[in-house]
Amino acid sequence: MEVKRPLILVSNDDGYLAKGINDLISFIRPLGEVVVVAPDSARSGSGCAITANLPVHYQLVEKDIDLSIYKCTGTPTDCVKLSLHTILNGRKPDVIVSGINHGDNSATNVHYSGTMGVVIEGCLNGIPSIGFSICSHNPDVDFANTQPFIVDIVKKVIEKGLPTATCLNVNFPNEEIIGLKVCEQAKGYWTQEWEPCPRKGDENYFWLTGKFVDIEPENANNDRWALHHGYGAITPIQVDLTNHTFIKELSNWF
Amino acid sequence: MEVKRPLILVSNDDGYLAKGINDLISFIRPLGEVVVVAPDSARSGSGCAITANLPVHYQLVEKDIDLSIYKCTGTPTDCVKLSLHTILNGRKPDVIVSGINHGDNSATNVHYSGTMGVVIEGCLNGIPSIGFSICSHNPDVDFANTQPFIVDIVKKVIEKGLPTATCLNVNFPNEEIIGLKVCEQAKGYWTQEWEPCPRKGDENYFWLTGKFVDIEPENANNDRWALHHGYGAITPIQVDLTNHTFIKELSNWF
Repeated sequence: MEVKRPLILVSNDDGYLAKGINDLISFIRPLGEVVVVAPDSARSGSGCAITANLPVHYQLVEKDIDLSIYKCTGTPTDCVKLSLHTILNGRKPDVIVSGINHGDNSATNVHYSGTMGVVIEGCLNGIPSIGFSICSHNPDVDFANTQPFIVDIVKKVIEKGLPTATCLNVNFPNEEIIGLKVCEQAKGYWTQEWEPCPRKGDENYFWLTGKFVDIEPENANNDRWALHHGYGAITPIQVDLTNHTFIKELSNWF
Repeated sequence: MEVKRPLILVSNDDGYLAKGINDLISFIRPLGEVVVVAPDSARSGSGCAITANLPVHYQLVEKDIDLSIYKCTGTPTDCVKLSLHTILNGRKPDVIVSGINHGDNSATNVHYSGTMGVVIEGCLNGIPSIGFSICSHNPDVDFANTQPFIVDIVKKVIEKGLPTATCLNVNFPNEEIIGLKVCEQAKGYWTQEWEPCPRKGDENYFWLTGKFVDIEPENANNDRWALHHGYGAITPIQVDLTNHTFIKELSNWF
């Protein structure tokens, strides 16, 4: 009896040439047929952005046994939409895997993350989806510590699936990983976000930067605490954003 | 006794010249001091994207009594970040208002919406924030029907505030509005998303388009149902994306 191998769609927001996505491909290639559709260059901070006002183009750059790699001019979200509606010819992936992102996507960063844009788009299409990130922006960071954890998580998600409208945001510390911890999204906010870079006397030019303020640093349930204590942090993310608990009170306003 | 007028920050994703934001300004100007910081041109579909790899620039384009208008080269989210950390000199808005967007941001479109990117950023910074949209992409659409509802909602939010980590996504039908209805985010997905636009024989160019499939069209609790039945739909949105109900089961996996 021939066993059908899982179809694994891979994308990211650092572009198809990043070390993170290439290490991810090598880690999960033994688990199934891998199709990569990723941006042609870095799209950090894309969130769930889509390309509304320009055509999007994709191109096959590598074809091997059970591995195809396409690059795409669009956003991470566009890559998933293109895969599902054109590139995969109607085949539905068993799992969508994004990353490994060079940079932390824990806490409220999930909103800005193109890595998680991929995952949210997969989830909105009913496909179990997982984003992986490491707490380092170094383009040559060593991902070796993450390999056994990534393989374990992807295998379990292929086997068990995920609840409706739920996906996973997985972040790793850039050090020895002592285990995995299921977490909630840490609460906090960014400060000192803009670094001046004046140009020809115009003071109104700025680089985005910033410092994250964790308002519950001692809360051992949250993903930042887990990362600071050596754990890989797995945060289950829901794509229904409704605050159901406020509906009744708000209804009384009108 | 001098009564301090509310400080109202306004932005959008259609750019500072769009009819929607200029009508919104005229509707809410009687309610307080209005500062507008909006993209210099259309940024539709920006989601919560930030500008990570380029400097961002802003410029004052209009200054009147209780009204200042700035244009910005960044995303809708950048506009809020710039306002809070540079332009407003540390003054905290009493409310952030986004739109009026030319186009529907109900259902799962909240994830792609730059209008809601503004609102989510405001909410992450602890400021009561509201996004307004109309179900029409017509650049000359008539917003007059929405005026009394927008004024009512903004006044109530200034007066009562909003719960922590909660903001509002308000969508209006492009017709007579029979009232307001507090809703949940409709469940569904997009299909037929790509329209080919071949270039010089290359068939891999596409425009993003699509058709939304509502999987619960008879569910009178959801925002699409409300819009189809003539209501302005108010959906409370939470920025903590954690699926808390799945944490326990997921913890058993590892």
